[in-house]
Amino acid sequence: MSVVYNKVALIGLGLIAGSISLAAKRAGSAGQITGTARSARTRSIARDLRLCDVIVDNSASAVRDADLVILCVPVGAMGKVMSEIKPHLKRGAVVTDVGSVKQEVIELVAPHLPEGVHFIPGHPLAGTEQSGPHSGFAELFENRWWLLTPLPDTDSHEVSRLRRFIRSLGANVEDMEPAHHDLVLAVTSHTPHLIAYTMVGVADHLTRVTESEIIKYSAAGFRDFTRIAASDPTMWRDVFLNNKEAVLDILGRFTEELFVLQRAIRMGDGEHLHDYFTRTRGIRRGIIEAGQDTAAPDFGRGPKPPERSQ
Amino acid sequence: MSVVYNKVALIGLGLIAGSISLAAKRAGSAGQITGTARSARTRSIARDLRLCDVIVDNSASAVRDADLVILCVPVGAMGKVMSEIKPHLKRGAVVTDVGSVKQEVIELVAPHLPEGVHFIPGHPLAGTEQSGPHSGFAELFENRWWLLTPLPDTDSHEVSRLRRFIRSLGANVEDMEPAHHDLVLAVTSHTPHLIAYTMVGVADHLTRVTESEIIKYSAAGFRDFTRIAASDPTMWRDVFLNNKEAVLDILGRFTEELFVLQRAIRMGDGEHLHDYFTRTRGIRRGIIEAGQDTAAPDFGRGPKPPERSQ
Repeated sequence: MSVVYNKVALIGLGLIAGSISLAAKRAGSAGQITGTARSARTRSIARDLRLCDVIVDNSASAVRDADLVILCVPVGAMGKVMSEIKPHLKRGAVVTDVGSVKQEVIELVAPHLPEGVHFIPGHPLAGTEQSGPHSGFAELFENRWWLLTPLPDTDSHEVSRLRRFIRSLGANVEDMEPAHHDLVLAVTSHTPHLIAYTMVGVADHLTRVTESEIIKYSAAGFRDFTRIAASDPTMWRDVFLNNKEAVLDILGRFTEELFVLQRAIRMGDGEHLHDYFTRTRGIRRGIIEAGQDTAAPDFGRGPKPPERSQ
Repeated sequence: MSVVYNKVALIGLGLIAGSISLAAKRAGSAGQITGTARSARTRSIARDLRLCDVIVDNSASAVRDADLVILCVPVGAMGKVMSEIKPHLKRGAVVTDVGSVKQEVIELVAPHLPEGVHFIPGHPLAGTEQSGPHSGFAELFENRWWLLTPLPDTDSHEVSRLRRFIRSLGANVEDMEPAHHDLVLAVTSHTPHLIAYTMVGVADHLTRVTESEIIKYSAAGFRDFTRIAASDPTMWRDVFLNNKEAVLDILGRFTEELFVLQRAIRMGDGEHLHDYFTRTRGIRRGIIEAGQDTAAPDFGRGPKPPERSQ
């Protein structure tokens, strides 16, 4: 693989930035990678891990001479970072981001764009419940989707180049309208996260069941919620504040639907419940066929079932 | 390991019964295992897999001479099965079940108990999203909890013996009050399942987002919900109909809490959201420390992060 960008700058050094750096080094698609983070402790851990070629103390020096700048900070910090780096961006540079929300990021970033700098918003659909510079790994993006929401007037040559770089990290790239992105993610990610946080919160507040009981008996379904609800609080606060309309829309539908099932339980309408639970199985089958999850029972988490011919 | 029961009868041959049979054979804790299922197809698959020593066509013959009878049918079928086997139970036999609800099972089973037969209700907290006789495996119960809710007048010698048999399958045994069991499970299992079914249903009904988009981009959180929502519809219908009070109680708390978070999003109260999301992380840590889940990011589902010293 040949070098796609001579100099790449990573602003923010969490799970995603760390994984980008390790994946790009492995692929040889970046000449030099410079990283920075606001916290001295994060920079020091990243230095110890040799996460980037160079770690600098501020974003202004990080972006100097950079051909590609990737904003890897929570959505709420994007505007501030842009105002800091704006005077230091090279003419012809590409700026992208990894935020989970796209319309609001465009509104925060676009006003700061200097003449001759290309902004191509992006969002890798990859992550784990862990955060911080030590949690990154080169394989994070393999066979995962990375959505780009380029604006209508963006140089298509630069979009192709960014796609090439992202593919070098192992991801599949697809374009989407920013508003549609925010709706799709509200369904596949944002609302499920809010619901998981809520369910874990309910368990936490319930005094008749002890925390030790919740923890011991979590394998029955609850532990998947706790994994989701262990994700980075700052990132998720910013997601909800910045994708408000779509999340509130999906939440409204969710509550409506939940009330119908709740009523079926109260009224003893077993047929309604059975039909509903049967339909939802089909979606699961689709996800496994699309290679976005494993069919191994329980994700092959614990002891594994033996191979068996049948 | 020595034989704990000479003859064990399994009524129903799904994931749990299959796993019990394979685990007991491996442990040598059952002299002979006889199984039966209502469906001829299930019996035929179980025969092909050699799931039990003997497969018979009806529950009456299955329980004849059995020292231990395990009811492995959906909760709603327990009463019917009991009325069928009642005249054929051996004096001194132990009857247990694996239903996810305990108070209602006791009400369904107890009236049918002949003199001299011991009923000890139970519930293994183990399972996968797969169902049917081919989905069982001997390791399913390893390091999982198996709750017993013995009634006050039960022969304690028989309870100890059943505990010994369950431990031979690899599980940890604990006693609990039936009503408390139903509340704990409403929190750790039943309500999370209903919520997951609902979220998958919402995605399914949303016409502005295609099913193929939902499936492709599911890795962002949604796929964990689809796994839960792929569980056996009949079993889950019966759980909700038979643990109505506790589920409706927890659902009420869930909706209340969800509305508070929803309002925080609408009002832009980032501090409230951040505090909430920070508290829920602690529960996750407890589950990992208790050995009920792996700390590997993403459950080690996809490509694995390399070992790294730090």
